[in-house]
Amino acid sequence: MTIKSLIRTVPHYPRHGVQFRDITTLLKDPLGLKVTVDELFNHFQDHKIDKVVGVESRGFLIGTPLAYKLGVGFVPVRKQGKLPAETVGHDYELEYGSDRVEIHTDAIEKGERVLLVDDLIATGGTAIATLTLIEKLGGQVAGCGFIIDLISLGGRKRLEEKGYSMYALCEFEGD
Amino acid sequence: MTIKSLIRTVPHYPRHGVQFRDITTLLKDPLGLKVTVDELFNHFQDHKIDKVVGVESRGFLIGTPLAYKLGVGFVPVRKQGKLPAETVGHDYELEYGSDRVEIHTDAIEKGERVLLVDDLIATGGTAIATLTLIEKLGGQVAGCGFIIDLISLGGRKRLEEKGYSMYALCEFEGD
Repeated sequence: MTIKSLIRTVPHYPRHGVQFRDITTLLKDPLGLKVTVDELFNHFQDHKIDKVVGVESRGFLIGTPLAYKLGVGFVPVRKQGKLPAETVGHDYELEYGSDRVEIHTDAIEKGERVLLVDDLIATGGTAIATLTLIEKLGGQVAGCGFIIDLISLGGRKRLEEKGYSMYALCEFEGD
Repeated sequence: MTIKSLIRTVPHYPRHGVQFRDITTLLKDPLGLKVTVDELFNHFQDHKIDKVVGVESRGFLIGTPLAYKLGVGFVPVRKQGKLPAETVGHDYELEYGSDRVEIHTDAIEKGERVLLVDDLIATGGTAIATLTLIEKLGGQVAGCGFIIDLISLGGRKRLEEKGYSMYALCEFEGD
């Protein structure tokens, strides 16, 4: 069993020409879910992680079991207006238009080592916006973990240029 | 440490007069996350669960670590148009208007014993709609698990009238 073989490709979703990489087929498989979490755990268990941050909403799917397994807390980062208490936000550019991510202001303590988790890295825009939020709260970015790296879209290069390291369980072309 | 003591109440969210029960303060606490998952695991471990279904998006936060701990797969139920492959949906009434939940048609095998998980049960409308989806796919509802039961809103009674059993980790008034 490889993780990559359990990921379904949905052609032309969410728009024509895009090959959507669907992790629901991976997560519904008992061994698929287990191996995904365990491989991320094995990679990050010695990174002295204090907290896992996951991005709405597919980042929740992998971030919470990983936090549980690491024995640390989990913090959600959400789109604008979705978190109930006081937040800090960060706007970032998309191919067309812009978007905003928010985090609760009391979600991270100064100096905590934080692991960012999401299902997928494409251009890295959402990841970098989220890392900016973590640092705004005084957190120290301890790493970034993804199930999928869409390699031709350059996310890894952008993260590494900013001094962040990342780990992904499998790679696809970014078509 | 009690689970209930780690849940934050945000007054007047999302609208005036509502006391929002915020689980992010529970999940960011390492012991809070651990005890939440472990108590649900302890309750359901002998229920012969084949699959966990969690409702977008706070149900993802507790459903995936529970599925991981149970050694089974996880299936997301989402709002309309959010799942990439072929879905079946169910419309249900809200206090004002209606809503729709969807599940991938290949998410559950006939006869599988399925556990529904969400952060909270209020009137039970979303839960019953989701249980209907599970049964449309031939799944057998093995139980429902929640962190919070808003007791005055009657969700438990509605579930039990339809023959479902539920378990919640703590109770609040539904004000």
